[in-house]
Amino acid sequence: MGIIVQKYGGTSVGTPERIRLVAEKIIKRQREGNQMVIIVSAMGKSTDSLIQLAREVTSNPDPREMDMLLTTGEQVSISLLAMALMDKGADAVSFTGPQLGIQTTAFHQKARILDIDVSRIHQALSKDKIVVVAGFQGVSENQEITTLGRGGSDTSAVALAAKLRAECEIYTDVDGIYTMDPRKLHGAKKLETISSEEMMEMASLGAGVLHHRSVELAHKFGVPLYVASTFSGQSGTRIVIGGNGKMEDSLITGMTSSHSDVQVILMNLPVGMKSLRRIFDEMGDKEVNVDMISQMMNGDKRMHISFTIPREDAHVARELMDTWLQEDDAIHWSINEDIVKMSIVGMGMRTHSGVAGKVFDLLEQEDIEVKMITTSEINISWVMSSADEEKAIQVIGDGFDLTEKEIERE
Amino acid sequence: MGIIVQKYGGTSVGTPERIRLVAEKIIKRQREGNQMVIIVSAMGKSTDSLIQLAREVTSNPDPREMDMLLTTGEQVSISLLAMALMDKGADAVSFTGPQLGIQTTAFHQKARILDIDVSRIHQALSKDKIVVVAGFQGVSENQEITTLGRGGSDTSAVALAAKLRAECEIYTDVDGIYTMDPRKLHGAKKLETISSEEMMEMASLGAGVLHHRSVELAHKFGVPLYVASTFSGQSGTRIVIGGNGKMEDSLITGMTSSHSDVQVILMNLPVGMKSLRRIFDEMGDKEVNVDMISQMMNGDKRMHISFTIPREDAHVARELMDTWLQEDDAIHWSINEDIVKMSIVGMGMRTHSGVAGKVFDLLEQEDIEVKMITTSEINISWVMSSADEEKAIQVIGDGFDLTEKEIERE
Repeated sequence: MGIIVQKYGGTSVGTPERIRLVAEKIIKRQREGNQMVIIVSAMGKSTDSLIQLAREVTSNPDPREMDMLLTTGEQVSISLLAMALMDKGADAVSFTGPQLGIQTTAFHQKARILDIDVSRIHQALSKDKIVVVAGFQGVSENQEITTLGRGGSDTSAVALAAKLRAECEIYTDVDGIYTMDPRKLHGAKKLETISSEEMMEMASLGAGVLHHRSVELAHKFGVPLYVASTFSGQSGTRIVIGGNGKMEDSLITGMTSSHSDVQVILMNLPVGMKSLRRIFDEMGDKEVNVDMISQMMNGDKRMHISFTIPREDAHVARELMDTWLQEDDAIHWSINEDIVKMSIVGMGMRTHSGVAGKVFDLLEQEDIEVKMITTSEINISWVMSSADEEKAIQVIGDGFDLTEKEIERE
Repeated sequence: MGIIVQKYGGTSVGTPERIRLVAEKIIKRQREGNQMVIIVSAMGKSTDSLIQLAREVTSNPDPREMDMLLTTGEQVSISLLAMALMDKGADAVSFTGPQLGIQTTAFHQKARILDIDVSRIHQALSKDKIVVVAGFQGVSENQEITTLGRGGSDTSAVALAAKLRAECEIYTDVDGIYTMDPRKLHGAKKLETISSEEMMEMASLGAGVLHHRSVELAHKFGVPLYVASTFSGQSGTRIVIGGNGKMEDSLITGMTSSHSDVQVILMNLPVGMKSLRRIFDEMGDKEVNVDMISQMMNGDKRMHISFTIPREDAHVARELMDTWLQEDDAIHWSINEDIVKMSIVGMGMRTHSGVAGKVFDLLEQEDIEVKMITTSEINISWVMSSADEEKAIQVIGDGFDLTEKEIERE
């Protein structure tokens, strides 16, 4: 009898009625002869309500106490789901992260899973119980309650599946992985399969369905993932570990666009300037993640440099430049917030050259200026003005066959 | 430096603003040179909302999963209170019951505290932290999350105070202990002190301010209790362990009235009937608590018997009598739900006789019929028709000096 790990997101368990529907889905799979381990998120918007409560108490909530507060959200959903399963005749038992010994680092709000003691799960499964586990949470060596940060419940699910050598099914409010967010690209195609490497790229480039940490973990431990809608009944997307997916017939698998970065532009810096090094060092110390960098000489002694950082860290960069770049009047700096970062991802790029050239051609047809560009083995990313986003998505989507043909013919 | 254990009820932490006010009160006491350990209940009506959620999921929630669900309520309040304390410049740390090792029996929803490991509390106090503890919850030997049942947070507070050899202050939404619920007795007096023995009687007879388990625990371990309003600023009531309180100047300390029982009446039972024994045994098995019993012979071979049981268990008695009393047509049985149980409590009764006689006299003046009566060393309880409650409270309150003189003169 195989173990299946399923994860249900907050929308899927957002009301008592939905919890009952989810319970039926789970019991159906159990009756087909599977041992079921279920990970759930907090109900609907309950995490937001808890954060709001904390804000009404203090403008600067302590991270440890935030973890104490937020973990109640999942504890509510696991108990209600276990009750619903029992109400429908199954045997079920719920566990919090600490109860299960989901050992994490001690870094509150951003903890990482170190190990999971699955003995209690095996014990419960051997008694035909459906095991319901609180996602997003764990416990540190000092018995402190921790949370895993964004996308934490997906990560909990994949980590459990890895330990249990099980398949992992992620149920959510979208139908699967699309070539591009269908709200942005009219006619975007749903993918039947995608390789884990492509999915990692897409997730880290802003595709919202799966958090990149969970995909990385699945890739690392070889956990087969399946992403589908909880209630639509349609088939979802299979994430194939290490494989090529159905790559042969398409050069590009998917596309993302993200507004989460800003572009920092520094003009006329003296070559070898110590302040620049200092700015990068201090950003590193403050965990500001510098992503794309481009540099260009301006004569012999001066250069222009430009890089992107997360939007929420713009103030950090601003303070550092205010502090370190005052000495030289020739230096000008600015932060461009009206940018979007677009990326195309595909294993096909490994064997086909000329993809970057085609991107430039397509964008040029629409008079779109590329401000920065980076390429890696299976992705090409570029920064352009936010105003050009819609045009760019359509021309790239059509040019690389990311839309349904029927739609294209309309 | 002394340790003070304070407990704040749900109303006292019912909103973020109140949580901030409570934090100020606590910090003030800490600055006066005390080490503070705080127990809190769930915010306002949040426990009711959780119960409502469970009901929407199932009509028959599993007790273990209910404990999993309900304990989130206190976990929310401890984290918010700790945040509020830090926001106001204090250092604070919150602990759930399981985190602190509040060891309980495994009986879900009605667990009893076995022991508390206070080492983490002492550690935190030694670092000048204010310790905030979730009331009402603990953990069983098997690492299951348990709750203590009604009045559980008071019990948590007293148990912690006992282990820490500290005083225990219970803050709530009333000003202290009154001779009688002031909503029922116009002019009821607030008591400055009351003996723990009297308080135990009053609590078990239905005085709602403190749960009788917590008073029993305080009495047993000699924990001085103080009950006061969180926000009124008025002085409260001190519960004196073992002492006489201010008993010398009053015969009766307080009065209670309770609607939580019904009266079962059995007429013309054959003497020595096995079915009666069976009914009492089965009620015992089902944890139906028989309180007052009175019996009267009707001729040589038949008797009338009458007893009170908790209102919520009336259906149990009804089923048992339907089952066991059918054989004999002479037997008539009924359940009277329109009754109230009144009690007066006072250490003074130990040394003064004639109290029961005075009660009868006062009630007779008002034509009130006493249906059943029991007396113990320091209390007299009787059952009468609900319709007589208001008249009885006033005549007994006035007759035993339980009202303010100024009010009496009005």
